[in-house]
Amino acid sequence: MRKKIVSIIGGHSCTEEVEQLAHNLGEKLAKVVDMLACGGLSGTMKAVCQGFRAAGGVTIGILPGYNKNDANAFVDIVIPTGMGLARNVLVVKCADVVIALPGEMGTLSEVAYCLQFGIPVISLNSWDIKGVIKVKTVEEAINKVNGLLKKENKDYEN
Amino acid sequence: MRKKIVSIIGGHSCTEEVEQLAHNLGEKLAKVVDMLACGGLSGTMKAVCQGFRAAGGVTIGILPGYNKNDANAFVDIVIPTGMGLARNVLVVKCADVVIALPGEMGTLSEVAYCLQFGIPVISLNSWDIKGVIKVKTVEEAINKVNGLLKKENKDYEN
Amino acid sequence: MRKKIVSIIGGHSCTEEVEQLAHNLGEKLAKVVDMLACGGLSGTMKAVCQGFRAAGGVTIGILPGYNKNDANAFVDIVIPTGMGLARNVLVVKCADVVIALPGEMGTLSEVAYCLQFGIPVISLNSWDIKGVIKVKTVEEAINKVNGLLKKENKDYEN
Amino acid sequence: MRKKIVSIIGGHSCTEEVEQLAHNLGEKLAKVVDMLACGGLSGTMKAVCQGFRAAGGVTIGILPGYNKNDANAFVDIVIPTGMGLARNVLVVKCADVVIALPGEMGTLSEVAYCLQFGIPVISLNSWDIKGVIKVKTVEEAINKVNGLLKKENKDYEN
Repeated sequence: MRKKIVSIIGGHSCTEEVEQLAHNLGEKLAKVVDMLACGGLSGTMKAVCQGFRAAGGVTIGILPGYNKNDANAFVDIVIPTGMGLARNVLVVKCADVVIALPGEMGTLSEVAYCLQFGIPVISLNSWDIKGVIKVKTVEEAINKVNGLLKKENKDYEN
Repeated sequence: MRKKIVSIIGGHSCTEEVEQLAHNLGEKLAKVVDMLACGGLSGTMKAVCQGFRAAGGVTIGILPGYNKNDANAFVDIVIPTGMGLARNVLVVKCADVVIALPGEMGTLSEVAYCLQFGIPVISLNSWDIKGVIKVKTVEEAINKVNGLLKKENKDYEN
Repeated sequence: MRKKIVSIIGGHSCTEEVEQLAHNLGEKLAKVVDMLACGGLSGTMKAVCQGFRAAGGVTIGILPGYNKNDANAFVDIVIPTGMGLARNVLVVKCADVVIALPGEMGTLSEVAYCLQFGIPVISLNSWDIKGVIKVKTVEEAINKVNGLLKKENKDYEN
Repeated sequence: MRKKIVSIIGGHSCTEEVEQLAHNLGEKLAKVVDMLACGGLSGTMKAVCQGFRAAGGVTIGILPGYNKNDANAFVDIVIPTGMGLARNVLVVKCADVVIALPGEMGTLSEVAYCLQFGIPVISLNSWDIKGVIKVKTVEEAINKVNGLLKKENKDYEN
């Protein structure tokens, strides 16, 4: 059966505080969904993968380049696209729900793509663009993900 | 010699007022640059191509799909990418300067890409993200383009 | 730890004979590798996914379009790229080893990409281009995959 | 009016003999079509651009990377895609007719894409795959291009 995927977007460099937030988010997420996707690099992506995997989940890293070794050490399934920033589309499009962590312009482009595609995007202290679901804590984020995944099951639609 | 390109981003549907703004911008732009690129479809893209071509410029349309006939009637050079929204990266990356007209999420993703790449982006009543050059009139936009193209020549860099 | 992936390329329509070959290949492959990737659609892709999953493996489908429902029913992890035929690059680049089943031009483009990237490509009654590893039976193909995956482990390189 | 485009595919390194062939082809082509597209790099691409431009044509280079300075000195319109080898799709899809010069796997992937899309592809001492139009001289190639462009006008189709 098709696996549900939650994608995490956010900066490839981040403060220690955001890193802990990402790690914590990863751990908690593993209790509500089997698979996590992200851009596969460092910063928030690495921290969230580490947390998610520590709690038993499987991680997907969709890389901008061709070199699998660019993936952080906590990525299980490496998809090297060689498409540069155009891979941002793929990171969000494979997801049932997206969570945005603090990040810069790459994150903003991904938030915009979510809203254009109609993919629910939860902003955890990240960009505040009309249409995002704003939350302040990991717990709130997890609750929202839970609700959205259940709703999706009920709608039985893509 | 490599031709300078100005790319226009903006909605594929727009009000009549924005349409006139786009047409006017196209006409004026043709006096300061030889080539204009855009997403090649309708709305602001069509209006700006029409104005630019009426004033003697050559237009490039970088399409999301594979069908050349999706290009509006004022595109001279059709690049059908078949890459969907990932083509937004190409629309801005080929430009020396980008001008954003009013638009929704597609435009926002393109603004974000400009800022990430370091391509100067002029916002003519469009998205107000930190780093964009805000202007209110076509004349101001043209002045900014002129200055940026001259600066670029002096810097002699990509 | 990063999972090994074998990608299967081949036609999206095929004879019943090739379908059985693909199904059989999928079943046997699941004994030597955890994950299988492919273009995610019908024909050889569907048959090989069905066999691989029946034998306990996990399947990845990298789709040309944006609609997850285009994936065949035996794909576990759906990556909808919206990149059209450019997604062929991704199908082969994520693999440690590629196996080509009979197919037309899409398959040929993928074989060519493998050879360009230096990814080992086993041709099971498929295209005969200089550089491919030609085999005639599923058993030979599995043996080759096994040898290549072990060699890769020893080389410890990407 | 939409401009006709002929795309040239071929190796980014080549013998002196092929280089002269490419240059000669470029010069002659400029008499039958306004625009030439190619991958924008060195080897056959550079030689054909040089010849085409010397004879008054306008050249488009669709680059794999993001750096405009990777384009050879005879490219007028630089489209930096950052998509790596996936840009091969774009090189052929923008063309009304494609001519293949000698080349390796990149060229083969492009020939395969032409045949898949149904774009006429003339092989000038290049890959011999079922469906290509084989020719031995520049003159034959030009005659074929001429015939195909006229036919296309008559069909008035994309």
